Amino acid sequence: MDYVYAPGRNHLFVPGPVNIPEPVIRAMNRNNEDYRAPAIPALTKTLLEDVKKIFKTTTGTPFLIPTTGTGAWESALTNTLSPGDRIVSFLIGQFSLLWIDQQQRLNFNVDVIESEWGQGANLDILASKLAVDSAHTIKAICIVHNETATGVTNNLSAVRRLLDEYRHPALLLVDGVSSICALDFRMDEWGIDVALTGSQKALSLPTGMGIVCASPKAIEASKTAKSVRVFFDWKDYLKFYKMGTFWPYTPSIQLLYGLRAALDLIFEEGLDNVIERHSRLGKATRLAVEAWGLKNCTQKDEWFSDTVTAVVVPPYIDSSEIVRRAWQRYNLSLGLGLNKVAGKVFRIGHLGHLNELQLMGCLAGVEMILKDVGYPVKLGSGVAAASAYLQNNIPMIPSRI
Amino acid sequence: MDYVYAPGRNHLFVPGPVNIPEPVIRAMNRNNEDYRAPAIPALTKTLLEDVKKIFKTTTGTPFLIPTTGTGAWESALTNTLSPGDRIVSFLIGQFSLLWIDQQQRLNFNVDVIESEWGQGANLDILASKLAVDSAHTIKAICIVHNETATGVTNNLSAVRRLLDEYRHPALLLVDGVSSICALDFRMDEWGIDVALTGSQKALSLPTGMGIVCASPKAIEASKTAKSVRVFFDWKDYLKFYKMGTFWPYTPSIQLLYGLRAALDLIFEEGLDNVIERHSRLGKATRLAVEAWGLKNCTQKDEWFSDTVTAVVVPPYIDSSEIVRRAWQRYNLSLGLGLNKVAGKVFRIGHLGHLNELQLMGCLAGVEMILKDVGYPVKLGSGVAAASAYLQNNIPMIPSRI
Amino acid sequence: MDYVYAPGRNHLFVPGPVNIPEPVIRAMNRNNEDYRAPAIPALTKTLLEDVKKIFKTTTGTPFLIPTTGTGAWESALTNTLSPGDRIVSFLIGQFSLLWIDQQQRLNFNVDVIESEWGQGANLDILASKLAVDSAHTIKAICIVHNETATGVTNNLSAVRRLLDEYRHPALLLVDGVSSICALDFRMDEWGIDVALTGSQKALSLPTGMGIVCASPKAIEASKTAKSVRVFFDWKDYLKFYKMGTFWPYTPSIQLLYGLRAALDLIFEEGLDNVIERHSRLGKATRLAVEAWGLKNCTQKDEWFSDTVTAVVVPPYIDSSEIVRRAWQRYNLSLGLGLNKVAGKVFRIGHLGHLNELQLMGCLAGVEMILKDVGYPVKLGSGVAAASAYLQNNIPMIPSRI
Amino acid sequence: MDYVYAPGRNHLFVPGPVNIPEPVIRAMNRNNEDYRAPAIPALTKTLLEDVKKIFKTTTGTPFLIPTTGTGAWESALTNTLSPGDRIVSFLIGQFSLLWIDQQQRLNFNVDVIESEWGQGANLDILASKLAVDSAHTIKAICIVHNETATGVTNNLSAVRRLLDEYRHPALLLVDGVSSICALDFRMDEWGIDVALTGSQKALSLPTGMGIVCASPKAIEASKTAKSVRVFFDWKDYLKFYKMGTFWPYTPSIQLLYGLRAALDLIFEEGLDNVIERHSRLGKATRLAVEAWGLKNCTQKDEWFSDTVTAVVVPPYIDSSEIVRRAWQRYNLSLGLGLNKVAGKVFRIGHLGHLNELQLMGCLAGVEMILKDVGYPVKLGSGVAAASAYLQNNIPMIPSRI
Repeated sequence: MDYVYAPGRNHLFVPGPVNIPEPVIRAMNRNNEDYRAPAIPALTKTLLEDVKKIFKTTTGTPFLIPTTGTGAWESALTNTLSPGDRIVSFLIGQFSLLWIDQQQRLNFNVDVIESEWGQGANLDILASKLAVDSAHTIKAICIVHNETATGVTNNLSAVRRLLDEYRHPALLLVDGVSSICALDFRMDEWGIDVALTGSQKALSLPTGMGIVCASPKAIEASKTAKSVRVFFDWKDYLKFYKMGTFWPYTPSIQLLYGLRAALDLIFEEGLDNVIERHSRLGKATRLAVEAWGLKNCTQKDEWFSDTVTAVVVPPYIDSSEIVRRAWQRYNLSLGLGLNKVAGKVFRIGHLGHLNELQLMGCLAGVEMILKDVGYPVKLGSGVAAASAYLQNNIPMIPSRI
Repeated sequence: MDYVYAPGRNHLFVPGPVNIPEPVIRAMNRNNEDYRAPAIPALTKTLLEDVKKIFKTTTGTPFLIPTTGTGAWESALTNTLSPGDRIVSFLIGQFSLLWIDQQQRLNFNVDVIESEWGQGANLDILASKLAVDSAHTIKAICIVHNETATGVTNNLSAVRRLLDEYRHPALLLVDGVSSICALDFRMDEWGIDVALTGSQKALSLPTGMGIVCASPKAIEASKTAKSVRVFFDWKDYLKFYKMGTFWPYTPSIQLLYGLRAALDLIFEEGLDNVIERHSRLGKATRLAVEAWGLKNCTQKDEWFSDTVTAVVVPPYIDSSEIVRRAWQRYNLSLGLGLNKVAGKVFRIGHLGHLNELQLMGCLAGVEMILKDVGYPVKLGSGVAAASAYLQNNIPMIPSRI
Repeated sequence: MDYVYAPGRNHLFVPGPVNIPEPVIRAMNRNNEDYRAPAIPALTKTLLEDVKKIFKTTTGTPFLIPTTGTGAWESALTNTLSPGDRIVSFLIGQFSLLWIDQQQRLNFNVDVIESEWGQGANLDILASKLAVDSAHTIKAICIVHNETATGVTNNLSAVRRLLDEYRHPALLLVDGVSSICALDFRMDEWGIDVALTGSQKALSLPTGMGIVCASPKAIEASKTAKSVRVFFDWKDYLKFYKMGTFWPYTPSIQLLYGLRAALDLIFEEGLDNVIERHSRLGKATRLAVEAWGLKNCTQKDEWFSDTVTAVVVPPYIDSSEIVRRAWQRYNLSLGLGLNKVAGKVFRIGHLGHLNELQLMGCLAGVEMILKDVGYPVKLGSGVAAASAYLQNNIPMIPSRI
Repeated sequence: MDYVYAPGRNHLFVPGPVNIPEPVIRAMNRNNEDYRAPAIPALTKTLLEDVKKIFKTTTGTPFLIPTTGTGAWESALTNTLSPGDRIVSFLIGQFSLLWIDQQQRLNFNVDVIESEWGQGANLDILASKLAVDSAHTIKAICIVHNETATGVTNNLSAVRRLLDEYRHPALLLVDGVSSICALDFRMDEWGIDVALTGSQKALSLPTGMGIVCASPKAIEASKTAKSVRVFFDWKDYLKFYKMGTFWPYTPSIQLLYGLRAALDLIFEEGLDNVIERHSRLGKATRLAVEAWGLKNCTQKDEWFSDTVTAVVVPPYIDSSEIVRRAWQRYNLSLGLGLNKVAGKVFRIGHLGHLNELQLMGCLAGVEMILKDVGYPVKLGSGVAAASAYLQNNIPMIPSRI
C-alpha cells in the first residue's frame, strides 16, 4: 500500500501535515472504545484543561472538533457572527484568501484589507477604519497569525493595541493554524476572542481535529449570533460539557489519546522551549537561504515566520520543478508555491516535531536540487551558514545531561 | 494513559465505534505525508472508486469528509436543499430525532412522521402525504435506514416504491450510518439520492470520516440548493476532483490508508458474505434474548436489525445498571438506552469486525450480569439458543479450507 | 501478508504464544535505538530489579536472554552443571521429555523418573533416590513446574521439603515456562536454584526473551561448572552487569520496552490478583469439561493446572480434527495433543492476558465443535457450568469502581 | 517510558541496530498467533526460499534462529566443527576478537592471524599456512567479512582463490553481520560454507533473529561434527523442515512478518540497488571525513567499508566525548571506538534503511560536534564534499518517475 516506496525516511518539510513523534504514533495505535464509558470523559477533561495552556489562556473555552482547519474557521465565524455582519479581514496570501472566501460565502460583509503577497497585514489601514467606526459597525477583525503561503507572521499584539486605542469592541478572530504551539501566542494577554488551530500542524498529530478556543466574550456573542450552524455549534458542546460527558457526537478515540501524548511531550520539553526551537529552526533556514543568494518571499524582518520559509527562485527556474525533483530524487517533501506565487516560490516547513539535524538534511537536499535545476549554488554554503548559527545556539537536551 | 486498565481484551459491543481489525490498525500506524505529492491522490482515486461498491452504486459520487456522521447529515442536507424547503422526516428513535433537530435548525420545513419507539417508519402516512402532494411541495424524504437507538431497520425499497407509485420527484436522503457495509443496501436499485455513513461503524475504522454518496440527481440539486455551506460544500470537492488533486483541505493520511485496508478486507470476505455474517449475528442475538425471556425493543420481525439489538428489561431493573456493571466487572461495553428508552433498554451492537465466538462471549457476559442485577435468567440459556442456530449456519472460512 | 484472513478477532487459546495486551503492543511499536546510549541501560536496570518480583526472589540474579524457552533450559543447565553430572529429571509429558532430551544431549547423566502422562512427578521415587544418595552423586533435580502437554502442575514445595529432609545439596532447576506469572511460584521460599520462563507465555509478550533467574548457590555453581557455553554463559552477563552497560550482545530494544509495559500491567493488576485470575479461568474451564461429560487428562485434582487444560476426547474422535475445525470454522486456536496423547487430547490454554468473557467465547466454540465432530454435547452446558462459578467469583475491576 | 525524550527524530548512525522502515514496523505491530496453525508454516516457507537470495545462494540451507549474531556464530561453529579442530581465524578488530574468544571457549584450536587494527585480513599468512598444510589439519577458515569496529571489509573472493589454489578442503565460515544485504556478497560463487547475519543490521529489523546459511558441504559436516549443541543444533531444524512445520521451538511471530516485509522492500528496491546505495553512502562519508582533514581508521582503500566508517580523531580529543555530545546535544547516535581504538575513533554507521539526506543530517551534526570539542573544522566542508559527489550520483527513485 505504499505506492511510491523509496529507501530511507521521507524528509517531510511541507508546512503541514508534519512529522508525528513516535510516542504519539504509539499512543494512537489502538482499538476503538466506548466513548460513553467513564474513561473517555475522564481523558477529555484533562485535554480540555491542558489544551488551554497552548493557547495561553485561563479564561477561554476550548472545543476539540472532528474537522480540519477549514472547519475550525467555520466554527469561529458562525458561532460569533450573524449574516450581513461587517468584518475586517486581511488578505496577505493563499490561506487568508481562502478564509475570506469562506467569510463571503457565509454571507458576512467582508471589508478586505489587501497587502502585497510577502507583506504582513496593513495595520495602518485597520487603524484608519477603526478611527472612523465610532458606530462600531465592524463586528470582528479576522486575521491569520502566520500566513503559511508566504511565510509571514502578523503582529497580533499590535492589532490588540489598535482595538484598545480606539476602544473598539470588535471581536478578534485569529487563525493560529501554523502558529499555535510553535510561535509566541498569547490568547488572554492579546485579547483574542477566538483562536484556532489544526491537529496536523505544530501539535504534530494526524489531521482530523480542529481546535478552537473561545473567550468569554466570544461565548457571549455565540448566544445571539444568527449564523446557521449545527455540526459546528458550540451550544451542543457546552451542553455536554455541563453534563460531564463532553461529546455531542462521536470523537476519534485515537486522536484523543494522541493529543494527550502530544501535549505531554510539549509540556515535557516546555512550551517556551518549543517556541525557542522553532525560532532556531526559522533563523537557521533564513541564513541558508541568504547564503544561497536567494530571496525570502517575506519582505521585512519583522514578518519573518519561524514555522515556514517561502524561498523565491530566479525567474528562469520553475519552483514546482524543485518540489517535484525533491520528491522524485531525494525523498524530500517541500511545499509548492500557491496561487500568485505558484512557480515562483517553494516552501520549507520547519514546524512541529523536528530538530536541527533533520533541518540540515533538508537544507543539504535543497542545495543539491538547486544545482539540479541549474541554479549556481555553492554546495554546502547554506548548511555552513545554518551550522555556524546553530552550533552556538542549540541547547543541551535537558533529559540527557 | 489507560485510566481504567482491566486484564484481557475489552469486549466492545456498543453499536459504534466498533472493533478495528488488526490489519487496519497496522495500516494506520504511520507518519504523516505530503497530501499534495502524487501518492495520496493515487490512493484517493482507488478509494473513491472502491467506496462506491459498498453503496452499490455505479453512478453516485462519493465524498470522504473529515467529519462525523452528524457532519455527514449536514453535508447531505445543505448541499441538496434550500432554507424553507419542505421535507418529510421519520421520527422513530434518538438518532432520527437528532437528525430532525438538525433539519429544523438548518431552517427546513420539517414534516415529521412519528412512530412509537420500537416501530419502523410509518409508510402509510408517507403514502398519504405523497398522494396529496401533486404540487410537489415535498422536496425530500429523510429516513434513517437503521435506527441505532431501538434496533429498527426501515424498508427503503418500500419508500422508493411509494415515490415511484406517486411519481414524486422528492429526493431520497438516507442515513445509513449503522447499516451500510452490514445490511443489504442498494443505492442505485432503490433510487437513493444521498446515502451516508461514518467510518467508525460497519467499516470498522476510527471515527473521523463521514462518507457521503450523491446520485446524479443530488449533484444536480446541489447546483441550485441555497443552504449556506462552505466546509461541507460538495462544489469544492468536485473542483478538486476535476483537477485530480482531490482534496480541498487536508485529509487524514492515516484514515485514507485505513480505509484502503478496510475495503480490502471487506472485498476479501465479500460484501455479500459480510452482510450474511451480520444476519447470523443478529439472528443469534435475538435467539438469546428470547431464551432469556426478555423482549426485543423492536416490535415486529420485519424491522429486526442485524446490527444492533435493543433489549427491554423488566420494570424493576434499571438498564443503565446493566451497562455499568458490564463495564465494571466484565470488561464488556454495552450500549445505554437513550432518551425515551433510557433505563428501559440496553443495547448489544453486533456490527463491524466481529465474529460468532466474540458474540458468544458477550452473550455469556450478559447472562451473568442479568443474574447480578436480580433477573432470574438461566445461565447458559442464551448461549445455547444462539449456538444451536450458529452451529448449523456458520460457514467454513474460505481462506482456511 | 495475512494468508488466512478471517472476520473478527482470532480466539487464541493455545498455551503459548498468548495474547499480547494492547499497551504492550504499543510499547513495542518503535524504531531501534543505540543500546549503548544511557537510555537502554537505565531501562534495563529497572527491568532486572522488577523481574525478580515475578519470581518472588530478592536474592536471585536474573538474565534476560535473546532466546526461547529451549535456550533458557540450556542456559540453566550448562551454567550450573558439568558433563557427566548425575541429574534427576521427571518425565511426565512432552515438554519434560524435550528437556530430558536436551539434558542427555548435553552429556549429563540423566536419572529419569517417569510417570504416566496425566500424572505429576513421582516424588516417592525421588525420595527413595535421595535417601540412598548420601554421597551426593545427584547434582541437580530438574523439574517442569507445569507440564504444558498434559496440564499437570507439580508440587515444588514438596520437592524442596524432600531435599531439606534429606539435607541434600542438589541444585533445584525449575522450568516455569507455563507457570511463572500465572501460578503460585516462590523462588526464594521454595529454595529454587534456577527458575526460567519465556516471554511469550504468562508475560504475554512476543517470543524472543528467555528469562532465567539464578540463586546465589547457582551463581556459585556457575563458577566451576564445566559445560561448554558461550552464548548462554552467565559470566559475560555478570561482567556487563558490573560495568553497568548490562548487555554482552545486542538485545531487542522492542522486547525491553515491551517487558517494561508487561511488568507495569502485572503490577497494576497485582501479581496475586493475576494468579487469582488464572485460578478462576482454570476452574471455570474444568467445570465446563465436566459438564460436557469429558475427562481431564490430568488424573488427580492436586495436579490440575490453572494455565492449560488437556481435554480427553472419546476414542471415536480424533482430537486433531477438533483443533483443525476450530481454526477453519470458528477462528479459534486450540492446542494439539502431542506425542503420546496426539489425537487423544486437545488443549485449552488459559494463561496470560485473558479474561473470563474471552474464555466463555472459547468454551462456546468448543461446544459447537464437539457437536460438529459428532460428540453428543448439550450446547450451552459448559458455558452454564463455568458461568455459575464465575458469576459468584469475578471481582469488580478495581480501576473502575 | 522514554527516559530521555528529545524533540525531533533520533538520528541513528550506530552500525546496528539500525533504522527500521515504517512498513516493517507496521508489519510487526500485531498480536501473537498459533505457530502450529497453517499460516506460520506457509509464511516460513516463503521466508526460507527468499532469504537465500540475500546470501546469493541457491544450494544453501538457511536457518532463522531466535538469537543474536553471537548465537549465529555459535551455530556456525558448533554444527560444523569438533572440539580440538584447528581453525584459522583473522583478528582485525573487536568483533573478530570476540568471535575468536568464542572459538577458543568452544575448545577449538584457533590459529590466529592478527593484523593491526585498521588493516584487513592478512591473506599472505593464510597462503603460507595453507601451503604447508598438505595434511589438511586446518578444518575451517573463520573470517569476518566486514569488521564493524574498524570499518574494514575483507576480500572473500581472494580467500576462496587461495583455498582453491591449494586445493584445500577447509570450510569457509563467514561472519556477514554488517555486510550481508549491504555489501557485495556471493555465497555460492565464493564457495562460502557458512554465512551468517543478524536481523538488526542491514536487514533493518529489530534484534532477535540470527540468520545462518549452510552450504551442502557444511550440512554434510554437521552430521559428524562433535561439538555439543542442542539449542543451536541444525539437526532439529532439518527434522522440522522435513515435516513441513519448520519450527523446533517457538519463533517470534512478529519477526517473521517483519522479515517478510523487510525482504519485500529489499526486492522492491532491488538487491543490487541496495548495494549501490550503500556504496554511495560509504563514499560520501569518506569524502566528508577527508574534507574535515581527519583520517579514516581503515588504512587502505581496498578495505574501505561501505557500511561503517571509523574516523580517527586527533590525539588531543577523546572520541567518546564526541559520541556523548552527539547524543546529549544533537539527538545523534554515533558508534564508540572499541577496545584498542577506544577514545581514538568514533564510528558512523551507514547501513540499512537509510538515504542520502539522512546521512547529510548526520554529517552536518558531526561537523558541529567537532567544533564543540575543539577541532578546527570548517563547517559545511564535509557536507559540501559529500554533496558534490552525491548530486552527480543519486539515481531517481524508480517508483516516482
